[in-house]
Amino acid sequence: MQKIIAFQGESGAYSELAALEHFGTKISTLPCESFDAVYESIIGDVATHGMLPFENSLAGSIHRNYDLILRHELHIVSEYHSRVSHCLLGTSGAKLENIERAHSHPQALAQCEHSLTELGILPVAEKDTAGSARLIQEWDNPMEAAIASTRAAKVYDLKILRENLEDNPHNYTRFLALTKKSLVVDDPKNGDYKTSVVFSLKNLPGVLFKALSVFALRDIDLAKIESRPIQGKPWEYMFYVDFIGHQQALNCSRALDHLGELAAFIRVLGSYPRHHTNINQKSE
Amino acid sequence: MQKIIAFQGESGAYSELAALEHFGTKISTLPCESFDAVYESIIGDVATHGMLPFENSLAGSIHRNYDLILRHELHIVSEYHSRVSHCLLGTSGAKLENIERAHSHPQALAQCEHSLTELGILPVAEKDTAGSARLIQEWDNPMEAAIASTRAAKVYDLKILRENLEDNPHNYTRFLALTKKSLVVDDPKNGDYKTSVVFSLKNLPGVLFKALSVFALRDIDLAKIESRPIQGKPWEYMFYVDFIGHQQALNCSRALDHLGELAAFIRVLGSYPRHHTNINQKSE
Repeated sequence: MQKIIAFQGESGAYSELAALEHFGTKISTLPCESFDAVYESIIGDVATHGMLPFENSLAGSIHRNYDLILRHELHIVSEYHSRVSHCLLGTSGAKLENIERAHSHPQALAQCEHSLTELGILPVAEKDTAGSARLIQEWDNPMEAAIASTRAAKVYDLKILRENLEDNPHNYTRFLALTKKSLVVDDPKNGDYKTSVVFSLKNLPGVLFKALSVFALRDIDLAKIESRPIQGKPWEYMFYVDFIGHQQALNCSRALDHLGELAAFIRVLGSYPRHHTNINQKSE
Repeated sequence: MQKIIAFQGESGAYSELAALEHFGTKISTLPCESFDAVYESIIGDVATHGMLPFENSLAGSIHRNYDLILRHELHIVSEYHSRVSHCLLGTSGAKLENIERAHSHPQALAQCEHSLTELGILPVAEKDTAGSARLIQEWDNPMEAAIASTRAAKVYDLKILRENLEDNPHNYTRFLALTKKSLVVDDPKNGDYKTSVVFSLKNLPGVLFKALSVFALRDIDLAKIESRPIQGKPWEYMFYVDFIGHQQALNCSRALDHLGELAAFIRVLGSYPRHHTNINQKSE
């Protein structure tokens, strides 16, 4: 079946680039106005998958997606760490030394602050990165540039004036691919998996420690813990834990049963192949 | 000594109201353009204290302040949970039924979405809540209103047309008061204290579990755990933990020593009297 991957943003967005890097170029991609619209497109069978950012290695977690995944009965089937490489894009006639203004999303501008200052280019905030690339194409002015992905350069037929414009090269975004059906594997012990689970806890002394002990006592490593407020219960939290292992593996399923004894609410969001970030990886 | 409390925002901001509720009305307050400017005003002895929001019970942690507190050698000396009550403010001649537009910060507008729809009032996004109140005073138009605090009503001499406009009443913001000097107490066992500590961990198996065990093994309760990315080290985190007890109490100081054995970095941000949220508390 042809894969249709929904993402938030316009054509050329970093999320679309991540989808193409992860799933290969034979897929179709579906631009969506909002994160909510990505979830709706999977629920409504308009898309087979959603490719959503959950964390950036510099800015931290993208909480909106942690909150939204809880509201929808979808499953995580893979993760992908995309190296964020910002490019300065201009029209075919543009030259780096003549660029006066760079248009982009405020976060991308902030991540390129020093580079822009060195180049003597003025940052101008826009709604998103790919939309800025589209504007540069429309204006066709050799003194204006956008900061966006290599994908945006292709989509809007722009010239890459400078690659790796970001001040900090350790800039990765963790994407999760969501579908309606969970991933089934024959041999959960054979392979390198990660599992994501969300839970709230009963009101017991030292309950968070006890919750984490269900993993530690079985030598299961934690990759990440994130907490989000529970609406209407001030200072109570929903915990999102990623651990190493597959939910069908015996030690993991026993840990999850044990966690269930301590939890007021629990849901496994998915088990999926683990993606190792190669921090020496060069952007394309 | 006269207390001068720096806060982010204009006169009439929720942070100023929280400072007055917490410290009493004999203090001076100092409006600052940004969170950074609040820290700078304490460092530069322009203010004696800073009053900064760290978490909202609906929206979650305010990460900018978690990141900034790490960069400055300041101490937490108290916490205060402020009930956020949004008021609809108009000019002296305004009537609720004639209001057409409500101006405020997007987050305040979102928290009053249903109330505004019921009243048939159009939301208009502005930079902040107190600034919106100032605009209403300047315009002096009986069809325009602001959503802001009771404090903003006093500062800008506006009429409160409706109190408790928020859709969800469980809306609290946790403020922390910061100073240059830490709080010294005579008897750390006598009293109800909370301590905040920030640490990163050595690369050991199950190290987060071990870190939390230093508290659990000594029956020390955790109030909150928050993680923030470490810049330049993808998928490694700085952990912020609040626990119940004073750092000078023997069990807590031993727990902190034990944590030091596991930590690559550790800093105690302060021990301060615990503030209990009264969730039946009415706004003033």
